[in-house]
Amino acid sequence: MPLSDIEIARQARLRRITDLAQDRLGIPDEHLVPYGHHKAKLALPYIHGLEGRPDGKLILVTAISPTPAGEGKTTTTVGLGDALNHIGKKALIALREPSLGPVFGLKGGATGGGRAQVVPMDDINLHFTGDFQAIALAHNLLSACLDNHIHHGNALDIDVRRIVWKRVVDMNDRALRDITVGLGGPGNGFPRQDGFDIVVASEVMAILCLSTSLADLKARLGRIVVAETRGRKPVTAADLKVHGAMAVLLKDALAPNLVQTIENNPALLHGGPFANIAHGCNSVMATRTALKLADYVVTEAGFGADLGAEKFIDIKCRKAGLAPSAAVLVATIRALKFHGGVAVPDLGREDLGALERGLANIQRHLHNLREVFGLPCVVSINHFSADTEAEHILLRERLGAFTGGSVPVLTARHWAEGGPGAADVARAVVAACEQPSTLRFAYDDADPLWEKVRKLATRTYGAADISASSAVRKQIAALQEAGYGHLPVCVAKTQVSFSTDPSQRGAPSGHVLDIREVRLAAGAEFVVMVCGDIMTMPGLPKVPAAEHIDLDEAGQIIGLS
Amino acid sequence: MPLSDIEIARQARLRRITDLAQDRLGIPDEHLVPYGHHKAKLALPYIHGLEGRPDGKLILVTAISPTPAGEGKTTTTVGLGDALNHIGKKALIALREPSLGPVFGLKGGATGGGRAQVVPMDDINLHFTGDFQAIALAHNLLSACLDNHIHHGNALDIDVRRIVWKRVVDMNDRALRDITVGLGGPGNGFPRQDGFDIVVASEVMAILCLSTSLADLKARLGRIVVAETRGRKPVTAADLKVHGAMAVLLKDALAPNLVQTIENNPALLHGGPFANIAHGCNSVMATRTALKLADYVVTEAGFGADLGAEKFIDIKCRKAGLAPSAAVLVATIRALKFHGGVAVPDLGREDLGALERGLANIQRHLHNLREVFGLPCVVSINHFSADTEAEHILLRERLGAFTGGSVPVLTARHWAEGGPGAADVARAVVAACEQPSTLRFAYDDADPLWEKVRKLATRTYGAADISASSAVRKQIAALQEAGYGHLPVCVAKTQVSFSTDPSQRGAPSGHVLDIREVRLAAGAEFVVMVCGDIMTMPGLPKVPAAEHIDLDEAGQIIGLS
Repeated sequence: MPLSDIEIARQARLRRITDLAQDRLGIPDEHLVPYGHHKAKLALPYIHGLEGRPDGKLILVTAISPTPAGEGKTTTTVGLGDALNHIGKKALIALREPSLGPVFGLKGGATGGGRAQVVPMDDINLHFTGDFQAIALAHNLLSACLDNHIHHGNALDIDVRRIVWKRVVDMNDRALRDITVGLGGPGNGFPRQDGFDIVVASEVMAILCLSTSLADLKARLGRIVVAETRGRKPVTAADLKVHGAMAVLLKDALAPNLVQTIENNPALLHGGPFANIAHGCNSVMATRTALKLADYVVTEAGFGADLGAEKFIDIKCRKAGLAPSAAVLVATIRALKFHGGVAVPDLGREDLGALERGLANIQRHLHNLREVFGLPCVVSINHFSADTEAEHILLRERLGAFTGGSVPVLTARHWAEGGPGAADVARAVVAACEQPSTLRFAYDDADPLWEKVRKLATRTYGAADISASSAVRKQIAALQEAGYGHLPVCVAKTQVSFSTDPSQRGAPSGHVLDIREVRLAAGAEFVVMVCGDIMTMPGLPKVPAAEHIDLDEAGQIIGLS
Repeated sequence: MPLSDIEIARQARLRRITDLAQDRLGIPDEHLVPYGHHKAKLALPYIHGLEGRPDGKLILVTAISPTPAGEGKTTTTVGLGDALNHIGKKALIALREPSLGPVFGLKGGATGGGRAQVVPMDDINLHFTGDFQAIALAHNLLSACLDNHIHHGNALDIDVRRIVWKRVVDMNDRALRDITVGLGGPGNGFPRQDGFDIVVASEVMAILCLSTSLADLKARLGRIVVAETRGRKPVTAADLKVHGAMAVLLKDALAPNLVQTIENNPALLHGGPFANIAHGCNSVMATRTALKLADYVVTEAGFGADLGAEKFIDIKCRKAGLAPSAAVLVATIRALKFHGGVAVPDLGREDLGALERGLANIQRHLHNLREVFGLPCVVSINHFSADTEAEHILLRERLGAFTGGSVPVLTARHWAEGGPGAADVARAVVAACEQPSTLRFAYDDADPLWEKVRKLATRTYGAADISASSAVRKQIAALQEAGYGHLPVCVAKTQVSFSTDPSQRGAPSGHVLDIREVRLAAGAEFVVMVCGDIMTMPGLPKVPAAEHIDLDEAGQIIGLS
């Protein structure tokens, strides 16, 4: 029986994180804040002291539209980081932190898999360094102060019907999606409708991930809009005087976390915003710091390239002045066959016809990355044992023809072999980074909000146009009017299709993107355009993973994946 | 202007916690799990390896019935620990961890004050080592799995009207006291009434604090009763198969935390259950470990001696096989005058008559500690500048007469002077520890539950009898019948009076203790007898401390107290 991820992780010989930081990154002990022997935060003053150094090259790992077959974006990010180190480059990985809730549900953790993992995987998947709990507490302090303000006289004249700030918990808990609070009489405040989101959906998470300093963090927190007054004026966290205390709660969380891969290469894990209602990538602090500490930084964006890579570029890179040198597009033969119409149980069978049909998905993502955003690309195909040679040959041929041979298409085996299994990909990435590239955005800052979404939809989703109800159009016009027109947009739509219809696999065209709802994230500095049903609080499955996660007799964790 | 607590704390020259652990306690580096440079957890295997060592002497710091004037129990615990070290003894402090919620409300933190503080005070009062968040997550995982079980078919036939397991958050948030969850349609589960408690009120907190090993912790978690079936059978966490995953979440939290005082003496801070619906003292793990590492261990129990010391003895000591060698009873002249009927604004004026009347309170506590529980006592009076010499003389004379001169009554100045200011108290405590003592309990294990409460009320509260509605009597009888009769009882009543009426200062007699509600804590192993309005979720005041807690330009925390 092959080893499970947690067994492989436990066999890894971890180095003391202080030693690793010193040897590999030249960070002296006094600039590290240890959390146990294998996790540490980099002290903020040290990070700010790096500002004069030159930047390394930034490599974005992204993927085709996600399928139930699995693509392996995180394992590729870790494997590529290990592979770059393996071929002698100084490389650092920058990843998101996993959310705790899904660990106990269906999804499991998010530390890679097989021989491409970051460790200690159990710590990282559980409490790690407390960042997400700090975010939850800061978020909920604002919630408590908001209801408390109304309870004690409501001097700001907040309209309890127009409160948009919910509460959060890092747990998959469907019962908390839609609740009534403040029941039980005058001592408990004013009854009103409310709900909990999972922590990763909090605007505080997005803010933490886009902030460049404690001062910037506090200022952004102050700009969070929590409600409207009876006179329809926005009420902010600063109006409630809570943003200072929120910043205090987030002071440590703003510092990036250093861990290692099972091959003892360094990795920064920091932040983890949702990729639908937020921008879905690790913190600006971590990415910027990584670029000062290494020659190559491998980072990842959530979901497929239409959502993750687009937001990485149009929100994070635009705002933080970052520019990736290359993109790695991850796919599997299985997932492409799924896009070609094959059902999950049949994915193990060779099906060149389905593969050929499914290519439409990867081709559109490649087109977007190269033509819309201007990035040199490498395609990395995660190898599965059921793949056939004929399938890999067909894929290489067709993509070669599609790109005029300008994009390397390589098979990666880091899951089974670790860094050496992705050495070819690493070499191709190094070469891609040498190509001239000019990062372009999908839309300009000066475009009106409506036009931003239209450009995105028509240029990258294959849509014919966008639409919205008159209420939503009014809301967008009002935001434009109120001075938020310069903000980037953050489209929240299903990740499994370029369209808003999850059943449309491959590369649908001619559809219309309907904006159903608009949410201002004034602190994170983007406008969320909700296009479809977006779940911001997951539920647990009938048999949650929690039933199998346990301590054995020796006090070791079992069942974590 | 005198320095604030946080300013004094910041001026302290902290030692690296690894150095302190090695020098002062002989703990090698590899048995510590650092959280930054000034906090560490002691590894569980190291703790279990101490079992063969002899125990030091245990000293309980308790107080008169709390008043708005303040008594200074935590400062006395810290000051006495420093004083014992100052006079050359090897002493270790064992305290509770502060709850985060009240830090942003009215109460502030709980790390002592003046020159008697544990540090780093800001870290300790904020996230510390994440224990409370781990408890909150374990608690809420059980809540989520409970509603999830019902949503997915309710195989256990749980009666949604008879769910007793609420949710928790470490925040003062009155709007969450009484809520409705599961609204919004079938996808969100079954609507029902629910509520949030603050984390310190969670049974998981009490369980963590009474557990002696990971295996004991997991077994206790499994016994938590969360609801009843339609057939009135108890449903436990083990029935839901969640206790293993809860133990995984609590694995690190079970290990005690080591910090230091501003005089660089070691202190273990671990756990912090409520003192009303739970037993109100730090963990058994921490107290037992401290006794193996030092000759004198100074620990504290919540509220006044009628609640805190009683539960410390009847619940914690009884179950963990601990026996204090002496008790320190803390009072202030101001607080005794308050018990004598003086209003708060007038406490700064000499009032010998009021002081004399207020003595009834301290005398009853002294009687209980000495005659009911059999403990040698020392009275420590925290000095305030408005106290007059005549007041101190009167107090010493009267208590001398009351105890036949057998209880030292000393004035302590650790708040202003640190350890040297409490050296007299320390010497008296060392002498008291040499006196022969036999710990007695207020009731026997074999007493029926009703009789246990009756003994407590008549022997220690001055009550004439106890009462209960027929519904409550039936519930008590049912618990007795169901095999829970051997458990200790945990009385939840107001802390400001021996009676259940908060306006009855001093030492009321002849009242009747009415049991209004009964709650089984099967995992913590006690039966809570609720006698009066007990708040398990605090609210925020009109101007919460959060409004003044902030980061200054240098990124330093201000406004924390």
